[in-house]
Amino acid sequence: MRGTPVPLIEPRPVTFLSDFGYTDEFTGVCRSVIFRIDPAITVIDVTHGIEPGDIRRGALALAALVPYSAPAVHLAVVDPGVGSDRRALAIAAGDHFLVGPDNGLLILAAERLGGPDSAFEVSASPVRLAPMHRTFHGRDIFSPVAAALARGLTPDELGSEIDVTGLVRIEMPEASLDREQLTGHVMSIDRYGNLALNIGPELILESFLRDGEALAVESGGRVVAEARFGSAFADVESGNPVLYPDSSGCLSLAVNLGNAAETFGLEPDDELRITPAAR
Amino acid sequence: MRGTPVPLIEPRPVTFLSDFGYTDEFTGVCRSVIFRIDPAITVIDVTHGIEPGDIRRGALALAALVPYSAPAVHLAVVDPGVGSDRRALAIAAGDHFLVGPDNGLLILAAERLGGPDSAFEVSASPVRLAPMHRTFHGRDIFSPVAAALARGLTPDELGSEIDVTGLVRIEMPEASLDREQLTGHVMSIDRYGNLALNIGPELILESFLRDGEALAVESGGRVVAEARFGSAFADVESGNPVLYPDSSGCLSLAVNLGNAAETFGLEPDDELRITPAAR
Amino acid sequence: MRGTPVPLIEPRPVTFLSDFGYTDEFTGVCRSVIFRIDPAITVIDVTHGIEPGDIRRGALALAALVPYSAPAVHLAVVDPGVGSDRRALAIAAGDHFLVGPDNGLLILAAERLGGPDSAFEVSASPVRLAPMHRTFHGRDIFSPVAAALARGLTPDELGSEIDVTGLVRIEMPEASLDREQLTGHVMSIDRYGNLALNIGPELILESFLRDGEALAVESGGRVVAEARFGSAFADVESGNPVLYPDSSGCLSLAVNLGNAAETFGLEPDDELRITPAAR
Repeated sequence: MRGTPVPLIEPRPVTFLSDFGYTDEFTGVCRSVIFRIDPAITVIDVTHGIEPGDIRRGALALAALVPYSAPAVHLAVVDPGVGSDRRALAIAAGDHFLVGPDNGLLILAAERLGGPDSAFEVSASPVRLAPMHRTFHGRDIFSPVAAALARGLTPDELGSEIDVTGLVRIEMPEASLDREQLTGHVMSIDRYGNLALNIGPELILESFLRDGEALAVESGGRVVAEARFGSAFADVESGNPVLYPDSSGCLSLAVNLGNAAETFGLEPDDELRITPAAR
Repeated sequence: MRGTPVPLIEPRPVTFLSDFGYTDEFTGVCRSVIFRIDPAITVIDVTHGIEPGDIRRGALALAALVPYSAPAVHLAVVDPGVGSDRRALAIAAGDHFLVGPDNGLLILAAERLGGPDSAFEVSASPVRLAPMHRTFHGRDIFSPVAAALARGLTPDELGSEIDVTGLVRIEMPEASLDREQLTGHVMSIDRYGNLALNIGPELILESFLRDGEALAVESGGRVVAEARFGSAFADVESGNPVLYPDSSGCLSLAVNLGNAAETFGLEPDDELRITPAAR
Repeated sequence: MRGTPVPLIEPRPVTFLSDFGYTDEFTGVCRSVIFRIDPAITVIDVTHGIEPGDIRRGALALAALVPYSAPAVHLAVVDPGVGSDRRALAIAAGDHFLVGPDNGLLILAAERLGGPDSAFEVSASPVRLAPMHRTFHGRDIFSPVAAALARGLTPDELGSEIDVTGLVRIEMPEASLDREQLTGHVMSIDRYGNLALNIGPELILESFLRDGEALAVESGGRVVAEARFGSAFADVESGNPVLYPDSSGCLSLAVNLGNAAETFGLEPDDELRITPAAR
């Protein structure tokens, strides 16, 4: 959402993403902790349905969110290493803050916001809850730190500065363009079975993809789909596949009124090769 | 909830229903868009667990909600035709507005609110986000339009008026009463396995159904249940079936402390015939 | 969260737990009822994913929440006996109120808050909705009663006082310590497959459990796991089991970066015997 600048609202909103799921009380506990610190904070649930420990999926979801957010604190907890020596972070990026574990979860969103400007280790933050439990930092560290930032405290009041170049990154497969062949990988599958690839807007622009063009999609050595390039599901007939820049700008593969993941038997990390269809 | 009139609160609340599910960031993105437009808007999640593309289920859920809502903007996105030429709507109905695709999703709720008073095509609304993506109108059109209405803009500022008689309707099977036989269809199954039928309060009143009466329920040519007519699950013994006017006023079939859908193997659209049990 | 006293915020927040799930409109309807009564009330969803009718799981989740909450009204609806003669309750406990059915759902949380100070039968509350349906007291009784308490009404304005000693309790298995054998039962399994036992902080302290100690866990007459006692998942190698006081203070069994419930094939109510591992 480009364009009009957005004024800073105080307290800032807290967006909240996790792999806590919807059957336990964990998200409610974190929200209660935040409310108790400042009842005026608006909490916006992003999703709590990230598969347990799926850091990359959480990172991609958060990165898709932040361009649409007012200046906020983004609280994210997908934290399989909780209680280990992994660091606890508050990152400043543009007008935003990001709070969560140092395992790559925050980094794509920070980059989408212009890159991490500064980062702070908050494991021993003065605002953390006591007694602290080593199995629920979401409640005992990250929620109070997020609430404190939302209220206007600065990150240096909440931890000690660390080098942004040392933040943990996520390993992402590389997409590539070789004349008339685009090679990418399935990064995530949404509820509708649409497959998002690691082929971003620049690579799409550079490539041979043109509206209405017929394309062959290969995976594992065989053509799995013959798709058209378009900008909407309805650019192809019902049941037909379409490749299109999705609502985050990445190339995605969908089936109009269908489920591409099921139809083509594709999964995260599968490599796809896209070429012009044989004429 | 009849009775006391409810004052208009500004900004109006936005109720939010979709088939976005709980694993992706879609609902959080829409909420962020709304927050960015006006942080004072309260968003009330209705459900985001409608099966992908199940317009009728979404329409029924929204219609069950609206009688209990203060004057609000009801944002609803179950939109398999997004990006096609289906229209994008803002409907005025009584003290409420409804915003979503023109595929029947809003129409039952509009009727519950006294019928659509006026309707507006908002695909090219001045408040839509730019660049607009043809695969996520929930974010780029419907959320900003809903937020604008919540803030007090009028629908004619957001689109061009269209004829309410031309709005897309949902095909619903017909229920019927023939002396001592009621014929209806399963419209939806809730989390507890209770089966809601398309037999409304008027038809129930007109019919032979009386408290405590023993009834035979036939489907597919065989008697699937012998049920009592009552007003609560506990009107029958544990494990026994009961037919009752449910919390929306429609006839429903349940099993006390059990799951009627599983017990009787019934599904949406199954036709049921209800007659007095043979004595 | 011990320590700093928390000022009372008016209107109080309402925390909301149920087994309504995420596919129907039930939670949205209840929130709309609360909003309509007072738009200034913040509602904090605890979880709505309790298995239908699983009162004990709901009671445990609510009890885990309340120590982290500001003075609030805790609305909880896991109510398989709705419409029967089970009572509808508003309980005062410390600075908090609890609202829900008299089936044991509220009792553990009330005890965590210092015990129920007083209790009121609110089935015929003057604030209930009319017409009232016997299948949805969450909407017609509990939500309006919770909203009224949040606004500052006192429970005696909402119902008639009853004897707190007569409140329905939950049957819980007994844990025990016999020299070097701790016997407990699986109470709940969280999203990560961690198993929480009915062995609380006092029993842990009294017992032979010491940091780093090797332990045998028996169930059904066989050793199912050899675990270490620790305070975090990362106290053991990836894939290894750990027994630890969890974030609520109870003994739990987890597998570091794994799923203990799946690994060991354990279920709620399974009895576990914990002894020092043979040396």
